[in-house]
Amino acid sequence: MEIIAMAIPRNFGIRVLETTSTSWISPSKFTWNPSRKRGMIKMAQTEASPDVIKELSLSTGTYLIPHPKKVETGGEDAFFVGGCNGSVVAIADGVSGWAERNVNPALFSRELMRNVSLVIEEEQANFDPVILLKKAHSSTTSMGSATVIIAMLERNGVLKIASVGDCGLRVIRAGQLVFTTTPREHYFDCPFQVSSEANGQTYRDATVCSVQLMEGDAIILGSDGLFDNAFDREIVSTISDIKDAAEAAKLVANLAHNHSKDVNFDSPYTQEARTMGYDVPDWKKMIGKKLKGGKLDDITVIVGIVSANSRSSSDNTLKLDT
Amino acid sequence: MEIIAMAIPRNFGIRVLETTSTSWISPSKFTWNPSRKRGMIKMAQTEASPDVIKELSLSTGTYLIPHPKKVETGGEDAFFVGGCNGSVVAIADGVSGWAERNVNPALFSRELMRNVSLVIEEEQANFDPVILLKKAHSSTTSMGSATVIIAMLERNGVLKIASVGDCGLRVIRAGQLVFTTTPREHYFDCPFQVSSEANGQTYRDATVCSVQLMEGDAIILGSDGLFDNAFDREIVSTISDIKDAAEAAKLVANLAHNHSKDVNFDSPYTQEARTMGYDVPDWKKMIGKKLKGGKLDDITVIVGIVSANSRSSSDNTLKLDT
Repeated sequence: MEIIAMAIPRNFGIRVLETTSTSWISPSKFTWNPSRKRGMIKMAQTEASPDVIKELSLSTGTYLIPHPKKVETGGEDAFFVGGCNGSVVAIADGVSGWAERNVNPALFSRELMRNVSLVIEEEQANFDPVILLKKAHSSTTSMGSATVIIAMLERNGVLKIASVGDCGLRVIRAGQLVFTTTPREHYFDCPFQVSSEANGQTYRDATVCSVQLMEGDAIILGSDGLFDNAFDREIVSTISDIKDAAEAAKLVANLAHNHSKDVNFDSPYTQEARTMGYDVPDWKKMIGKKLKGGKLDDITVIVGIVSANSRSSSDNTLKLDT
Repeated sequence: MEIIAMAIPRNFGIRVLETTSTSWISPSKFTWNPSRKRGMIKMAQTEASPDVIKELSLSTGTYLIPHPKKVETGGEDAFFVGGCNGSVVAIADGVSGWAERNVNPALFSRELMRNVSLVIEEEQANFDPVILLKKAHSSTTSMGSATVIIAMLERNGVLKIASVGDCGLRVIRAGQLVFTTTPREHYFDCPFQVSSEANGQTYRDATVCSVQLMEGDAIILGSDGLFDNAFDREIVSTISDIKDAAEAAKLVANLAHNHSKDVNFDSPYTQEARTMGYDVPDWKKMIGKKLKGGKLDDITVIVGIVSANSRSSSDNTLKLDT
């Protein structure tokens, strides 16, 4: 169904780019078009009416690509998709620094996700990602630490999110990014992380938020391997026409994986690094070089597509990758 | 109160910047420091324990700087701070394009905010920003349109947000950005907007989300004049040591205002414009020029600082700028 939505641009014509600069706008890039004056826009109608409460559920797809040097062991990311209609999705990313203490970084993240699956089974009714994280973490006995994100979809469409560190979540609506989580770190490349250590971070350090989803929305969860290597605008355009969650997850993971191997890609990771003051030596800067390249890492992607009143029995399977 | 929190960096030493590039890290910018190996970090303890429910409230400060050409009329932004302990904060930004139809763009935004204040008074108990927006919009009779954001703080610390367009909200915790809203637009510089037109956007088009606040958090609401001219990292550093909400709002507004007048500033607005394909003509690019400069605009900033169990009668005043 389509509606005609009316919108007035902030400014009309050439003033659409009214900066304080005296620079000109390239005529090849911007042409004054009188038809914009009324801003008549056709847009897809994807919003569910708040007056009509629909039961929403997720159709999910997952894809994990390990770090190229960790293919045999499967990497250190772990994820969980479960609950009624895949209504609980979670990713844990084992902190690789533990390897230097001869601790396998995958053990903690995998056990944490396994414990999420157990807590969910025990207490299906307890619909709070913070409590789920608290219980799963407290029952994890492996040494190590992990960044973690847990998201739970209520049937009224509210997606509740708890995140510790730099796993992330995006919501895409009608081809546009409408919601994003914000990563949290102690300093560059040292994220908040739940830990086996008594004085580490816990559920109390989680960023807790929620977002009202609508029929047709897509949610994308990822470990930092996704968001360090792919820009949001790339993720949006990659899945904009994809209706199948599994296909979307594969495409997004491959997008990030390909960037991660590209030594010339100016990745989100290196852009952030430069903002934080890291760069190539000055003599390289003088010849036009800069810090660039993707970041090799485990890459986990979960895509959920929101549908209304369409709960199928095949969605009730519980998947656990550990 | 301080705690010692333990964190393990993703990778140790020089590998903290392990990109796929062969570029070197500047020794002047990064020095291997064995003390990072354990990542012992002192961090401020600002998190309230989820086990102890505190009553949270906002101490608010506001600052509005009109577009330099609209100083005499006060510009087209309007805002509202009210409710018990300033627990409802809102900004509306009148869409300037209406001026070309001989409609004063300020009328709609000002009436919308006035109606928010009336609906709040009538139905204090109805604590839903979407319903508040719906009722305020439906009772607005002026011709025009506006972007709008409404945020309401519940005493348990949940900040409920409804936003149509590109007004925005940030949450800063312990000196770090932890939450951000995402603007929504039809195309570059044409935001979603509630309108006097029957086929325009309404509350149904709002992005609806919430975030759990904690004692000591700062929230920053702004019209697009703020976020088009100031980067999040600048906003964070500007208010990091400021305890007074009014002083923080003034500092942040002046930061954006100064950038807006700077023809050489590479603003968020021009960076976004270049990403969307707008730029100077090719011949200027060839001599190293690019589209830059701030964006002259009305700039409204509301800062709220979250405190626990400290409701003072002086916070109960209702402020309305129309």
